[in-house]
Amino acid sequence: MPVRVICNPVHAAHVPPHEVDNGVVVPPWEVPARYDAIRAALAARGGFAFEDAPQLAEDVVCGLHDPGYVAYLRDTSAALAAGEWVMPSVFPFAPGAARGEKARRGTYCFDTFTAITAGTFAAALGGAAAAYRGAELLASEAERTVYALTRPPGHHAEHARCGGYSFLNSAALAAAALSAHGPVAVLDLDVHHGNGTQHLFYARADVLTVSIHGDPAGLFPYFSGFADETGTGAGLGLNVNLPLPLGTDEAGYRPALAAALGRVAAFRPAFLVVPFGTDAHEADPIGGLCLPTGFYAELGAAVRALGLPALVLQEGGYDVATMGECVAAFLGALA
Amino acid sequence: MPVRVICNPVHAAHVPPHEVDNGVVVPPWEVPARYDAIRAALAARGGFAFEDAPQLAEDVVCGLHDPGYVAYLRDTSAALAAGEWVMPSVFPFAPGAARGEKARRGTYCFDTFTAITAGTFAAALGGAAAAYRGAELLASEAERTVYALTRPPGHHAEHARCGGYSFLNSAALAAAALSAHGPVAVLDLDVHHGNGTQHLFYARADVLTVSIHGDPAGLFPYFSGFADETGTGAGLGLNVNLPLPLGTDEAGYRPALAAALGRVAAFRPAFLVVPFGTDAHEADPIGGLCLPTGFYAELGAAVRALGLPALVLQEGGYDVATMGECVAAFLGALA
Repeated sequence: MPVRVICNPVHAAHVPPHEVDNGVVVPPWEVPARYDAIRAALAARGGFAFEDAPQLAEDVVCGLHDPGYVAYLRDTSAALAAGEWVMPSVFPFAPGAARGEKARRGTYCFDTFTAITAGTFAAALGGAAAAYRGAELLASEAERTVYALTRPPGHHAEHARCGGYSFLNSAALAAAALSAHGPVAVLDLDVHHGNGTQHLFYARADVLTVSIHGDPAGLFPYFSGFADETGTGAGLGLNVNLPLPLGTDEAGYRPALAAALGRVAAFRPAFLVVPFGTDAHEADPIGGLCLPTGFYAELGAAVRALGLPALVLQEGGYDVATMGECVAAFLGALA
Repeated sequence: MPVRVICNPVHAAHVPPHEVDNGVVVPPWEVPARYDAIRAALAARGGFAFEDAPQLAEDVVCGLHDPGYVAYLRDTSAALAAGEWVMPSVFPFAPGAARGEKARRGTYCFDTFTAITAGTFAAALGGAAAAYRGAELLASEAERTVYALTRPPGHHAEHARCGGYSFLNSAALAAAALSAHGPVAVLDLDVHHGNGTQHLFYARADVLTVSIHGDPAGLFPYFSGFADETGTGAGLGLNVNLPLPLGTDEAGYRPALAAALGRVAAFRPAFLVVPFGTDAHEADPIGGLCLPTGFYAELGAAVRALGLPALVLQEGGYDVATMGECVAAFLGALA
């Protein structure tokens, strides 16, 4: 049986103009070619069946995100012409004070890497649709392994803030949908900590969030992903961060992976959601870990050994030359 | 008797490389030539005696600002070579999580307009020194009118955040120092709302803060300066914002000025602190109000009519061609 790949058919509507890093304009890393490279690699490997995600109603994501934030994304995209963008310059630090449009920009965004364009909301909603469809396929037991091929990423998106190239948290949306059918474990394998996913489930006992990532003291998102962030309230102990020193290779990654898989298994989830990035690869331009291409099959096999119905969602990975092969190897071993 | 002008002798140590507005790099407006233009205009008019501010110990500003923030400014400047700068890219929204240097950047700053350079801390401390010296001269009754000629501005600086070209809130430092000797009224005449000053005194009964500025719904800082921000606790009713629609000319400004002066007089302060900008001038490139040069003498005379010992501090004003004449006219009528 081929692995079903749920595609975001409108991902290319979102083309960021650039990023701003330390006040310097740099070309965007999060580009449509990333998607194309993965799709081509999967097609070349074989064993994958591609289908477009059906449309998703906006109110479905309003169950996860702040409706005012969702409206902001929608209305901002709608007001922009092709080639225009919105990036925040002022970041209000007092909640509730964002009465003007320029204050809203910085209230609903936490960085200078995440421009909104005319096609951003459509592309982000398409990604959420792919994730939601994947969750449906697992929940109905129609499939045991599904891959959501999409961009822009989602795991940095907070309840009411975009950032880290992420607008709608597709992985969190899928996990929330699956949680109606049983406990869910999220295993985030992107090299950057999935701050949005962590925060959305931080107080929940029915969704375990586990993440292996580069040490946030030196890697985006900088402000979360530390080992002592373990959840709160009913979710206390159910957020697991495994930050790795920058430069960690496969030998250093394996113990963290074993620890992560052990935590997932001990939780006895009914479903596994994997926000997956290839940006821990040694060739990634904005990662910082040093996994070789050959490790991705091992990674997929290790996740397969959990024996759980799994939804894998594409998050980061910015070396277009190698990322397709990494995704294909991971999914090939997982399925 | 000439008006004593307390100069920041190291203002030129701070030369911002640029600003970032909506993700676009633009030349800096807040440049050393602003200072030079004012000094030249005052010298040409006559009646002003220039003196350099004495050095100020860092712990004096730590009585106003968060010591961790002050240390961040100092250490960041010290670590930079000439020509280097630091601007935040990630703005953490959860307090206390800024363990890495790049997270601190966005924790201690609220916009993309306010680069830190090697000379920034020295220049900001020099501005605070000028303000503090001015306060001493009023408190000791040595002078009744003093002007602090300095840059960078200060009134946007918060307890633990730079922004709006401001690093240390010199006007607030002076007002706090003067408040030991009697009630203080701050009358902010910069076209941009002095958010930092408002917040630093928001709960205090001994310092009245009044500001006339362009409507923050459409003008920096966007997130504060609205009319319904009136103070809290013991300071309730003692913060007065008089936002004016963009495009307001002198006819529209006069009623707000009368209201502001009425509030100041009713408070019966012992001292007046005036964070003063010329950016409400019709030629200002980033203002939005339309005051003609000829209005500045009227403005100075109106403040003079309060009959209060007054410390005027230079804040904004970005049309180098006209700002010197405006300052000279204002101070000439005030003294």
